[in-house]
Amino acid sequence: MNRRGRFITLEGGEGVGKSTNLDWVCSWLDERGIEVVRTREPGGTPRAEAIRELLLDPSSQEPLDDDAELLLVFAARAQHLAQVIRPALARGAWVVCDRFTDATFAYQGGGRGLDMQRIATLEALVQRGLTPDLTLLLDMSIEAAQERVDQRLGQQGGQRDRFERERQAFFQAVRDAYLARAAAEPARIAVIDASHSLPAVQAELAEHLERQVALWR
Amino acid sequence: MNRRGRFITLEGGEGVGKSTNLDWVCSWLDERGIEVVRTREPGGTPRAEAIRELLLDPSSQEPLDDDAELLLVFAARAQHLAQVIRPALARGAWVVCDRFTDATFAYQGGGRGLDMQRIATLEALVQRGLTPDLTLLLDMSIEAAQERVDQRLGQQGGQRDRFERERQAFFQAVRDAYLARAAAEPARIAVIDASHSLPAVQAELAEHLERQVALWR
Repeated sequence: MNRRGRFITLEGGEGVGKSTNLDWVCSWLDERGIEVVRTREPGGTPRAEAIRELLLDPSSQEPLDDDAELLLVFAARAQHLAQVIRPALARGAWVVCDRFTDATFAYQGGGRGLDMQRIATLEALVQRGLTPDLTLLLDMSIEAAQERVDQRLGQQGGQRDRFERERQAFFQAVRDAYLARAAAEPARIAVIDASHSLPAVQAELAEHLERQVALWR
Repeated sequence: MNRRGRFITLEGGEGVGKSTNLDWVCSWLDERGIEVVRTREPGGTPRAEAIRELLLDPSSQEPLDDDAELLLVFAARAQHLAQVIRPALARGAWVVCDRFTDATFAYQGGGRGLDMQRIATLEALVQRGLTPDLTLLLDMSIEAAQERVDQRLGQQGGQRDRFERERQAFFQAVRDAYLARAAAEPARIAVIDASHSLPAVQAELAEHLERQVALWR
């Protein structure tokens, strides 16, 4: 019988290089002959994507209640776990997921101010003890991340308007919540300084992945 | 300031006369000058109806996970509470709802075998202590209810095939779960023998409503 695969999540705000490093992590594992299932949240299955659409629906005139939002996030997660994540882990594949429950704590909890205890109740209900084996948190200052996003969009930084300042405060709260989780769970969550050069970041990612492979083989 | 309105739910399986008696309850309250908000579950708001559609979607090839189903039911309920039920009660209107959380315990818990404890966890999370002031449970034997449905559809009872026998077992489990809840909460849930004549049933409903009005005025 196969060993259960490892469950790895990548987390971080906008502009920290999550996509690039997600590609790199999947290639790194693939080169070592490990079956990788790459997926993302919210979504990951057709039904979970349909739930994601309800969450994002900008056409609705009706405000979405905070509890309804959290329950939809976890409904999509339950479906994703049942259809994709648990079966992949059970057959020995490694799952590499672009955001997971830490993002709910950071964005809905930290950024939007939803009750962290309610998120924790739903986490326990839906995950039934399954948590990532390793979470790679790509972290950098909000200013540095914003500069990267500006560069990518070909925009000037310069003066920021009120909307922009509110956006910055939101992202700061998201970052703070991510870092608080990392401080509370240092054995699971590795904080990677994403302001370093890409080779330096990837050398650090490789160290954490090597450790997972050693634990697994 | 207004007193908070009363929250009344009607429950029961198929064929017990729920729609007829729901109309009657609303008229009875209306005649006494009480503002009535009549609503139903799952649904009750456009967003909650959209969630209901995800639950019922027969086009999907992908099985819906049990936890995802429960979370969608309660996401729709959270939205319904926030948009319709709580505001109506707060302004002093009475809410008369066609099915509520007792139906989740009866159908998902009793009928489909989903974990009652998980339903109770979500109930506590979403309702934050708000429960119906009065639940009118219309009850009759599965055989008698089935005869009524057959009559309405102009069908013969007679021989039942395997599918039909399975359906009967499902409805028996739903009824048993409803009755178990009524036994556990006799002060809230009134069991009405729906096999009696309509005037007799409505005389009994009126007694329970009179008591609510007396408590309220």
